[in-house]
Amino acid sequence: MNTFGTLFTLTSFGESHGPAIGGVIDGVPADFALNLDAVQTELDRRRPGQSALTTGRREADRVEFLSGLFEGRTTGTPIGFIIRNADQHSSDYEQLRTAYRPGHADYTYSAKYGLRDHRGGGRSSARETACRVVGGAVARQVLASLGITVRAYTSQVGPVVLAKNFEELDLSLTESNAVRCPEGSTAQRMIAEIKAAKAEGDTVGGVVTCVVAGCPVGLGEPVAGKLQARLAAAMLSINAAKGFDYGMGFEGAAKRGSEVIDNFEMNTQGRVVTTANHSGGIQGGISNGMPIYFRVAFKPVATLLRPVSTIDSKGNSVELKMKGRHDPCVVPRAVPVVEAMAAMTILDALLISKATV
Amino acid sequence: MNTFGTLFTLTSFGESHGPAIGGVIDGVPADFALNLDAVQTELDRRRPGQSALTTGRREADRVEFLSGLFEGRTTGTPIGFIIRNADQHSSDYEQLRTAYRPGHADYTYSAKYGLRDHRGGGRSSARETACRVVGGAVARQVLASLGITVRAYTSQVGPVVLAKNFEELDLSLTESNAVRCPEGSTAQRMIAEIKAAKAEGDTVGGVVTCVVAGCPVGLGEPVAGKLQARLAAAMLSINAAKGFDYGMGFEGAAKRGSEVIDNFEMNTQGRVVTTANHSGGIQGGISNGMPIYFRVAFKPVATLLRPVSTIDSKGNSVELKMKGRHDPCVVPRAVPVVEAMAAMTILDALLISKATV
Amino acid sequence: MNTFGTLFTLTSFGESHGPAIGGVIDGVPADFALNLDAVQTELDRRRPGQSALTTGRREADRVEFLSGLFEGRTTGTPIGFIIRNADQHSSDYEQLRTAYRPGHADYTYSAKYGLRDHRGGGRSSARETACRVVGGAVARQVLASLGITVRAYTSQVGPVVLAKNFEELDLSLTESNAVRCPEGSTAQRMIAEIKAAKAEGDTVGGVVTCVVAGCPVGLGEPVAGKLQARLAAAMLSINAAKGFDYGMGFEGAAKRGSEVIDNFEMNTQGRVVTTANHSGGIQGGISNGMPIYFRVAFKPVATLLRPVSTIDSKGNSVELKMKGRHDPCVVPRAVPVVEAMAAMTILDALLISKATV
Amino acid sequence: MNTFGTLFTLTSFGESHGPAIGGVIDGVPADFALNLDAVQTELDRRRPGQSALTTGRREADRVEFLSGLFEGRTTGTPIGFIIRNADQHSSDYEQLRTAYRPGHADYTYSAKYGLRDHRGGGRSSARETACRVVGGAVARQVLASLGITVRAYTSQVGPVVLAKNFEELDLSLTESNAVRCPEGSTAQRMIAEIKAAKAEGDTVGGVVTCVVAGCPVGLGEPVAGKLQARLAAAMLSINAAKGFDYGMGFEGAAKRGSEVIDNFEMNTQGRVVTTANHSGGIQGGISNGMPIYFRVAFKPVATLLRPVSTIDSKGNSVELKMKGRHDPCVVPRAVPVVEAMAAMTILDALLISKATV
Repeated sequence: MNTFGTLFTLTSFGESHGPAIGGVIDGVPADFALNLDAVQTELDRRRPGQSALTTGRREADRVEFLSGLFEGRTTGTPIGFIIRNADQHSSDYEQLRTAYRPGHADYTYSAKYGLRDHRGGGRSSARETACRVVGGAVARQVLASLGITVRAYTSQVGPVVLAKNFEELDLSLTESNAVRCPEGSTAQRMIAEIKAAKAEGDTVGGVVTCVVAGCPVGLGEPVAGKLQARLAAAMLSINAAKGFDYGMGFEGAAKRGSEVIDNFEMNTQGRVVTTANHSGGIQGGISNGMPIYFRVAFKPVATLLRPVSTIDSKGNSVELKMKGRHDPCVVPRAVPVVEAMAAMTILDALLISKATV
Repeated sequence: MNTFGTLFTLTSFGESHGPAIGGVIDGVPADFALNLDAVQTELDRRRPGQSALTTGRREADRVEFLSGLFEGRTTGTPIGFIIRNADQHSSDYEQLRTAYRPGHADYTYSAKYGLRDHRGGGRSSARETACRVVGGAVARQVLASLGITVRAYTSQVGPVVLAKNFEELDLSLTESNAVRCPEGSTAQRMIAEIKAAKAEGDTVGGVVTCVVAGCPVGLGEPVAGKLQARLAAAMLSINAAKGFDYGMGFEGAAKRGSEVIDNFEMNTQGRVVTTANHSGGIQGGISNGMPIYFRVAFKPVATLLRPVSTIDSKGNSVELKMKGRHDPCVVPRAVPVVEAMAAMTILDALLISKATV
Repeated sequence: MNTFGTLFTLTSFGESHGPAIGGVIDGVPADFALNLDAVQTELDRRRPGQSALTTGRREADRVEFLSGLFEGRTTGTPIGFIIRNADQHSSDYEQLRTAYRPGHADYTYSAKYGLRDHRGGGRSSARETACRVVGGAVARQVLASLGITVRAYTSQVGPVVLAKNFEELDLSLTESNAVRCPEGSTAQRMIAEIKAAKAEGDTVGGVVTCVVAGCPVGLGEPVAGKLQARLAAAMLSINAAKGFDYGMGFEGAAKRGSEVIDNFEMNTQGRVVTTANHSGGIQGGISNGMPIYFRVAFKPVATLLRPVSTIDSKGNSVELKMKGRHDPCVVPRAVPVVEAMAAMTILDALLISKATV
Repeated sequence: MNTFGTLFTLTSFGESHGPAIGGVIDGVPADFALNLDAVQTELDRRRPGQSALTTGRREADRVEFLSGLFEGRTTGTPIGFIIRNADQHSSDYEQLRTAYRPGHADYTYSAKYGLRDHRGGGRSSARETACRVVGGAVARQVLASLGITVRAYTSQVGPVVLAKNFEELDLSLTESNAVRCPEGSTAQRMIAEIKAAKAEGDTVGGVVTCVVAGCPVGLGEPVAGKLQARLAAAMLSINAAKGFDYGMGFEGAAKRGSEVIDNFEMNTQGRVVTTANHSGGIQGGISNGMPIYFRVAFKPVATLLRPVSTIDSKGNSVELKMKGRHDPCVVPRAVPVVEAMAAMTILDALLISKATV
């Protein structure tokens, strides 16, 4: 239950305050020249302490590869890797040994397993997503070699919504600001919103939009393996994610069919395209060659720097004042995680689509 | 890729205009007195031709059970079943042998497989969901015997949005109108909206909300088996579904953390509860004992009764006038499908949660 | 737990004395001209009542295909099928409602599930293997179109052992006698052995040898997906199978390494071959292009036509005199089942091996 | 394809001469006091360089646990671990960069993946089984806490066959000699056989027998999840394994049914038992409460210390004189690997059997 994927798989392990987190990436195509520095660069994008918007935790987050590579190339055997944990202030969490934080997994883990590693959220910590970024960075390089790109960006922070859709944006600007919104003025308003929340000891939610371009026709398997179903599962597995939609998404629920029709035509290169793309690049669960785009909603995380009332493991009411260092908005750091999950999902679907005679 | 679930599984088969559709339900707990009439009743809820709101197709949709039962009880062996197809107007679809309907799976199936059964959508037809209703009806009975209920209803049709949340509604009224909205006045507005769309040869989208109550603590497996990820995959696998969110969902993206806090407390029965339920009954991927609720967005289907411009398999532009009989709004008939997928997903998670020593 | 395979899968259902048995074959390559008569022919090879050596049960065993085919070609969607049960003498089994037959699954099913369908062995009946033969016949046709053949034969019945290995035999003669041994004189001795056992109300065991020729290099996945491990699981899942070995097998345990070396060389067509084939066509879990061969041991089934002492479900000692009609030796009818399981396993491995970029 | 198991899983990674091997153990029951020293002790049993019978390679083989444990107890989250590689004489293998060793995976890996890590066999090295021993040691402790024991021993080395069956032996003596045969005199003859082979630069095969005692009734799932099928797959995945049989096994093929009948009776404790155990503790794929026993055949490995003729990657004939340090007989060190695979398989089946309501 810690393995993502069918043929391209990531099995991850590790708690926030244990010796290390890590994983096993299996199903990597063989004889591929993997750029390890590019993997580390992706990991750095997710790292805490990048800007004033993120947690003060500073972790080097150096990935160490242990297998699956020979003289710079993948061998088709599993790639094992670890990331040592560091900068642990475990004592910050002593109060959580017994108290359950509202909106966190403390209670459910304790009830399910009979015990939990209370330090920093243990296995339920978002730190676990670092392993996904490693897996995703590997998948992404393979996809890039085939002309498939995966790019996500922040499209909403609290009430600040980026009004343009992805076709109206220059996604190369995403990394130009701390909030990872490709439009500068909206980015500034988002940053202000996050700073305001932080100043009040509060947190704020948001939305990440992701675009997969260059995808061939034919990825995804009906009925139980529809591409959107796999993407949805991948996205909802990310910490703090509360929703997923693709193409016209929830907005389509309010529409008439005549408003959202995607007519087919041949483009000038003789390729089948649709005149609009309300379908979001997927029809009947199978990619149609148009850009795939989707949104992932993130809640404002419950780690308030204010006292909250809760109970402890004996059922006593307690007041909890969290000390840990946390992001006031998880969305900017969720951007590379969304990309990673998308990249792994798409590569997995691509491999499955090749499995024919 | 036609199998849902891990331990409780449904493997389905069948095309709209072939001899039969059917499936295999595996992992059913043994020695359970299955009410076959109740399964048929669920299937009747999904059947076309129930009301003026749905397609004119009339199919008896009688499920025939072939195995897995002995003297009225489940034996722990797989339950095979078939539903014969009938009332087929295959000639209605002759034009689709070569032309690709916009917004349908015609093009993607043809491109992926090199051929397709063009009659009535073939495998991509929503008819396939009848098998899910059978599987879901079995799961639902097992859940009911454990005090777990799964109830869905129509919460939006086009611009008509049901303003109340599930706690303010009497869900026993859901079946009291053709649109399956438990509030009468809103139901009437929804019905009017569907009729208006139908009169214009158009279709309209909507939203189904689903509530799982009575769920024990501990269903769902971190990290890759989070309960919300499994639910999301199940829902996005339904035909015409475009989005999923649970708990505070996309609305939460606009919120501050202090607005959506779910404090823990002991209730008067000595059970751990949360004072609010923005989390939607799941924390860290694991059910917390509160009601699980989620929404599924459905698009307005692309089967307009107006001419549309498209291409055929040779790339020629053609004008297509669809004749088949289709629902102007799929949402009312999607309600039992959402319930079925939810029931199967919850029972599967429940079985997994039991797998310990 | 009733599904074989990873990408090419067979999910089966059905009991001996229920309305029907059947299954769902998924992952069949699309656009393949499937010969349905050839599937029925394979099924006829497994049918009871073929000769004096097999059970007197006579079942037409007509397979009815329900989906996945369009105008004679596979569509890439699942192939559902059923085989109606007939010629049921359920009353023959009334005594088994409570009594546990020695060497059968009566006790274990009852203990595991709390009840069982006692008629004819229910789900544990070898009748279930008819579904495997259907799945295998589909796989076999796909393999044949690629030049891969799967041929099994009887190589031992009780003490009668076929002395030659597969390279010394003309496997086209396998079907020339009732026992399916390609060497006539040995076949006659095997037939005499079976008749002798039958005359004494006894049964006799035996061995099936299977050869897969024309297999490309590269099927099988290290470490957990080794081709021999998949074949072993497939074979040990057959009713009455007690053992599996491949290549030098158990005989190799007695040997020195210098006796069983398979040197590599280039053959005159410029293809890599081994000078001997003690490896059995698989090295490191991956096919090496040489013929794959393996043996499957079958026990003498416990259905003696003599009184046996056993207990009933209340623990009382009872004497049981079985009346059902059973084969004195399951091996001849196991030959097509071994082939079917081998064909499905090889095609599945082939599809997996294609899943790369 | 590097993951064993369904609910209790081991995903392993690592090559013989890379930085480390390791794995992720998932599905471990929570709140179990794991004895880490006992895991290391199991690993020491597999370690090379234990006696004069094994390879001269000396590796500390220290397992480092990275996650899944908190204050000495399992948390229900995955246990990640690594074992650093050491004592690498990679230059011993330089000739293998291009040459294919007979009877090894050099050719198949190269053909399948387009390249390979030639040092020490890379991923196909038996060194990989160290990870299985770690996973197995964890499973074994959980099983032991439930009264289930897994014990293997050497029952054949070349022509030297241990004549007694497991019920006639004192399995506590297995570790009393270097060859792991519980009967001293036979052990001495086995040791002599191995020494003789070694002296000639040759190798010798053998058989490991394994006994699982204390298993409850009901493990294993019909039809595709039969316990013997899972055991067979687990055993055939071990390096150099060529065969598997259980209960009467291949010997049963020569028998009459009347010779191998396992009558049921109630024992004095009121438990259902069989008067004999030719079935090997499994009937219809489900454990019946009697001891489960099976054999695994191992070939004499092909690493001869004599010149062999083979080809290189360009198809040229070459003579190869292997220098690496290898065991003349893998069987003694395979004993803990067989136990490990059996323990993981049984625990996985046990967890699955619990998954009901």
